[in-house]
Amino acid sequence: MSVTVAAGFRAAGVVAGLKPSGKPDVALVVNDGPQHSAAAVFTSNRCKANPVLWSERTIVDGRLSAVVLNSGGANCYNGPEGFQTTHASAELVAELTGGQAFDVAVCSTGLIGQPLDRPILEAGIRAAHAQLSPDGGPAAAEAIMTTDTVAKQATASGDGWVVGGMAKGAGMLAPALATMLVVITTDAAADAATLDAALRAATKTTFDRLDTDGCMSTNDTVVLMASGASGVTPTQDALSAAVTAVCADLAEQLWHDAEGAHHDIAIEVTGAASEDDAVEVARAVARSNLFKAAVFGNDPNWGRVLAAVGTTTAVFEPEKIDISMNGVKVCRAGGTQFGEPSTSVDLTGRQVHVLVELNAGASTATILTSDLTHDYVHENSAYST
Amino acid sequence: MSVTVAAGFRAAGVVAGLKPSGKPDVALVVNDGPQHSAAAVFTSNRCKANPVLWSERTIVDGRLSAVVLNSGGANCYNGPEGFQTTHASAELVAELTGGQAFDVAVCSTGLIGQPLDRPILEAGIRAAHAQLSPDGGPAAAEAIMTTDTVAKQATASGDGWVVGGMAKGAGMLAPALATMLVVITTDAAADAATLDAALRAATKTTFDRLDTDGCMSTNDTVVLMASGASGVTPTQDALSAAVTAVCADLAEQLWHDAEGAHHDIAIEVTGAASEDDAVEVARAVARSNLFKAAVFGNDPNWGRVLAAVGTTTAVFEPEKIDISMNGVKVCRAGGTQFGEPSTSVDLTGRQVHVLVELNAGASTATILTSDLTHDYVHENSAYST
Repeated sequence: MSVTVAAGFRAAGVVAGLKPSGKPDVALVVNDGPQHSAAAVFTSNRCKANPVLWSERTIVDGRLSAVVLNSGGANCYNGPEGFQTTHASAELVAELTGGQAFDVAVCSTGLIGQPLDRPILEAGIRAAHAQLSPDGGPAAAEAIMTTDTVAKQATASGDGWVVGGMAKGAGMLAPALATMLVVITTDAAADAATLDAALRAATKTTFDRLDTDGCMSTNDTVVLMASGASGVTPTQDALSAAVTAVCADLAEQLWHDAEGAHHDIAIEVTGAASEDDAVEVARAVARSNLFKAAVFGNDPNWGRVLAAVGTTTAVFEPEKIDISMNGVKVCRAGGTQFGEPSTSVDLTGRQVHVLVELNAGASTATILTSDLTHDYVHENSAYST
Repeated sequence: MSVTVAAGFRAAGVVAGLKPSGKPDVALVVNDGPQHSAAAVFTSNRCKANPVLWSERTIVDGRLSAVVLNSGGANCYNGPEGFQTTHASAELVAELTGGQAFDVAVCSTGLIGQPLDRPILEAGIRAAHAQLSPDGGPAAAEAIMTTDTVAKQATASGDGWVVGGMAKGAGMLAPALATMLVVITTDAAADAATLDAALRAATKTTFDRLDTDGCMSTNDTVVLMASGASGVTPTQDALSAAVTAVCADLAEQLWHDAEGAHHDIAIEVTGAASEDDAVEVARAVARSNLFKAAVFGNDPNWGRVLAAVGTTTAVFEPEKIDISMNGVKVCRAGGTQFGEPSTSVDLTGRQVHVLVELNAGASTATILTSDLTHDYVHENSAYST
């Protein structure tokens, strides 16, 4: 399962003591090769955490031998020692694995602005190294959880090679990227450029279309590493498809586990003049607190969908928009014709599908979001206290 | 008080029966002249309600003799009869007051997508006309309330003339414009161009800087009418200052009455390279659900402020940002120096002041917002059910 399904990878997850809960909080994923090509994408937030500032530099040569991850602290905006702690943890992993610090990516998640205890972290890294195993994927996936209720893992198979991945993320989930850490591994043989193309193609239509609460993290990182241990070199298309499948699977798991959510809402926009237009419209609806609160109340309040669509710059004519909720067309021709009664819409289930037909072109996009609930407010007003 | 403090205006508010609650729901404001110059601004939402589509056309000649307003229905996206109902109500006011339909602005507020009962509305208009009075301002202000808990009224005095106004709005309050209806009157003598300049200057720094929940309405309208009854022609600056004072007062009242809010949060950004930058940064913080939920929990989680700042395109260097909450500098030099402990921040009071010092220029702006509370979720998940 997870990051150790691919040959050439070992992983571990341990309790270091960074989390007051005493749950696992340090993970290590090591690529034993023979190849060490890698690619990564990071948050587009301009306020970046120390591990992101570090990892952005490590990936420039397209090579990684390991990723070390911790929960229990974002290591972000916590004074000058924060970056030194990130650097020291990469040096320690390099020392233990016989590699170079610049081949070690670092990921952290937790509260911003808090010190990250270096001795505890370093002891955890040593413990994780001692427990590295070809079966360690699930333990690593568990160690990166924060408010996640379940560990997220996914796999996809190629012809003689496989892709596996793990992810964490439950809040501050908005794209480019969502608040999350993701490590994906493959035993396919592939150079860094091929991996980079596969990863960017995959994240563009998966993690970047997840927007549970409109809040963008300082720590988002998605790493893809190839060991080449299968001896098979897939085509770009085959590799991209498998990586996309793993990313889509993980993104769905993040969606279903979003903090406090009672409904998993897919906002599908069709008939857009461009894919960018479709994404803009879907994201505007996904970020409407009024719409999200209405769904929590099982209220098919499509007026709030329309009000959100109207705030965008997408190409459309208001009197041509159709809106359906769970298959019932409640708004027809922008309200110039009567739609089906809202009372026909059943929102009592977990899954909600909103279809916005712009009737302005042929492009489509879907954004995955959550409803706005009492549990979301509770969880995020009490998180750090 | 309110829209009848200025000489030359009469108003009324009545129970027509549009609201199931039986509360007042139709208001009429009439300008008896001698002048009838006017200006108005409307929602920038591209999905506009029928009364907005109508009123945008009535204002092109800079002349209004009356405004008719209803709560209990937005008259938006409710089939072809909706616009006809708006038109018919303007015709009826014109007939009753001896004017032209194109000199009557129409405003509606309530649920989108619901029919607006024309016979009930028309009976209400007739009743309101029969009750028109120079003391009718407060009754009119009451009749436009929806989820507002108090009627909003304000006045400002010039040299021999006055400005008065009323407003409604509690939810879907985001700018350009906020979800609200506002009518402002003056007995100053002023042409339409002067009124337009005064109104645009006023709304730009008042209503447009109110952003309680990031949701933009389909019905927002702000109307300014001058009767000239004082016989005094103020300078542009004097008129703009008085109109701005009334708009700022009304905006503060809307802020304090935002749906479900427990904290009134002012996000002040200083040291920005431009006013647009300052507004963008302040608005990004004001729209962070995680930050707003933290304030609800009295949690000075400045990491969420920083994470929101980082999503903007404003000019800044992350390591130069200072953040203060209620006067305590919790983040210094973007976390490269330690700030005061968050435990020194007291958020138990209603008023919260967040100061973001970008240290990138000399421009400033303040956005007024609210916290994200259980009451907000409750009110907006149960509103139409």
